[in-house]
Amino acid sequence: MKVSELGEFGLIDLLARMIAEKEGRKAPPDLILGIGDDAAVWRGDKSLQIATVDTMVEGVHFSPDTATWPEVGWKSLAINLSDIAAMGGEPRYALVAISLPSDTEVDAVAGLYEGMLALAGESGTTIAGGNVSRAPQVTVTVTVLGSSPNGEVLRRDAAHPGDIIAVTGYAGSAAAGLKMLQDNLKLPEAAAAYLRNAFLRPQPCLAEGRLLLSSGIRAAIDTSDGLVADLGHICQASRTGARINADSLPVHPAVREHFGAAARDMALGGGEDYELLFTGPAQVVDRIKSEAGCPVTVIGEITDKPEKIEVTDSQGRPVAVDIAGWTHF
Amino acid sequence: MKVSELGEFGLIDLLARMIAEKEGRKAPPDLILGIGDDAAVWRGDKSLQIATVDTMVEGVHFSPDTATWPEVGWKSLAINLSDIAAMGGEPRYALVAISLPSDTEVDAVAGLYEGMLALAGESGTTIAGGNVSRAPQVTVTVTVLGSSPNGEVLRRDAAHPGDIIAVTGYAGSAAAGLKMLQDNLKLPEAAAAYLRNAFLRPQPCLAEGRLLLSSGIRAAIDTSDGLVADLGHICQASRTGARINADSLPVHPAVREHFGAAARDMALGGGEDYELLFTGPAQVVDRIKSEAGCPVTVIGEITDKPEKIEVTDSQGRPVAVDIAGWTHF
Repeated sequence: MKVSELGEFGLIDLLARMIAEKEGRKAPPDLILGIGDDAAVWRGDKSLQIATVDTMVEGVHFSPDTATWPEVGWKSLAINLSDIAAMGGEPRYALVAISLPSDTEVDAVAGLYEGMLALAGESGTTIAGGNVSRAPQVTVTVTVLGSSPNGEVLRRDAAHPGDIIAVTGYAGSAAAGLKMLQDNLKLPEAAAAYLRNAFLRPQPCLAEGRLLLSSGIRAAIDTSDGLVADLGHICQASRTGARINADSLPVHPAVREHFGAAARDMALGGGEDYELLFTGPAQVVDRIKSEAGCPVTVIGEITDKPEKIEVTDSQGRPVAVDIAGWTHF
Repeated sequence: MKVSELGEFGLIDLLARMIAEKEGRKAPPDLILGIGDDAAVWRGDKSLQIATVDTMVEGVHFSPDTATWPEVGWKSLAINLSDIAAMGGEPRYALVAISLPSDTEVDAVAGLYEGMLALAGESGTTIAGGNVSRAPQVTVTVTVLGSSPNGEVLRRDAAHPGDIIAVTGYAGSAAAGLKMLQDNLKLPEAAAAYLRNAFLRPQPCLAEGRLLLSSGIRAAIDTSDGLVADLGHICQASRTGARINADSLPVHPAVREHFGAAARDMALGGGEDYELLFTGPAQVVDRIKSEAGCPVTVIGEITDKPEKIEVTDSQGRPVAVDIAGWTHF
């Protein structure tokens, strides 16, 4: 069987089962979360240690035709910091493994690191090591180590029926940005800049993740695969269902204005927004809405129907969703 | 300028300078070793934390024509454990990022993980997370996190003039194994099996690294780039020189017998042995020789001539060395 027939999540399940089978009986007692969440978590001497890794491949995740090298560098770190944010953690150190063709311009590599270092500086992350090797196309794999000092993390398996579902920021902006770049759409300057940044310079929600954790939220995920797909990951891990109102999704005015009817689909199914989707009691979500430095929007609630995601419009009519989100195979 | 003109080590220097410039003034006080050693080291709550990352790319570091998938998986973890060994640390957790073409056989991926899990089990390493993505060729990037409980690590910058230089195991066996596979040499079964394992299933010297550290050794490196090249890294970091006797290098009988005059060149310049090269006082090295579970061979001594590596034969005649070792560009 080919990997394409099994699919990305099928492959991950297979590997997770192999690892669990081999390590199951002797898994170290300090391992709190292994494969299956946004990041791995284990108990350190005092704090919880959080570790995550993500890869960007030229021609698959980015193209030098549409992204500058600093943007590629920024994003390759940002997608990892987003996983740390989704655990409510603080990033500490990063290791950067790059593979490159021999004829890559040194300026390109330097640009990539400039973008990465800009975000490292903003987020308090130190690049402590890495690896350089040759490959037919540029590949950047970043590992980030972080911690949660208060002994708790946000997780995918902590949603409960009755929880309110909310998201930070806007949904679908990255998908709209990708569409604009791929189709070379000419949009007004402000909208174009917003959409380009949404896709190429996502801002990891580190402060928001810490606010969620300190406010008492326990269930969260970052929206990298697409809002409904990521909500599905939460429901699968928590053995719950969910009901959301597609018309309540926070769509940015630039997306609403320039993408019309497609905007809602982008918000539901588009990946790579790197916002946080979380669930919790209504009064906790209300408090977070008033304290967060970004929009926080209630979009639905967790139900007791395992893995059933119901999406309706404001009139209660079912809405079809392409929940494939971003899948690699 | 192209990366190929700058070279692998030139590129690493450039990136290390960029990072130091950006982070220099605000480098976290708990960072002990950043870029420039076998692994990064920072102070945890109690123990020292050690982190390293390494990548294997299909067609560059391995070929499915000569290596089985379990061998690729074993080696992709082994080369990282070797970096932990070179710090005198204990491995704890690994994150595995794999990139694959869509038409990769699932059995190939499962085989790769089988090999990795076999070594993970032997070495007490837990695979705690990872990432799966698409790419034109199989690429495996493994990050290993480890620790050193006693507050010290082995480092490249701790050699002193007058130190004895010693190596564990045999030198040049991996290069001979690669040559055998590439040229499809037909050797007797036992020799062929030894050489294949030397190149494809290296045994990381974790016990040896811990023995070195607990015995009082402070300067070590793993021989991944080639013995003389790696000795050069020690001399560069320690601002010392070195003098070694090429005829004293530990060459395995299978290599000596089947590769004749080329054996010495393989021992001096061949990469990927993943043995430990270390320096220290003669009496400490003597004690290690008697306590180690593998051959430990004295090959020379550290001198006070910065970065001058003198290689002679037993008669004191200069020996020319191709010190390029393994370089990517």
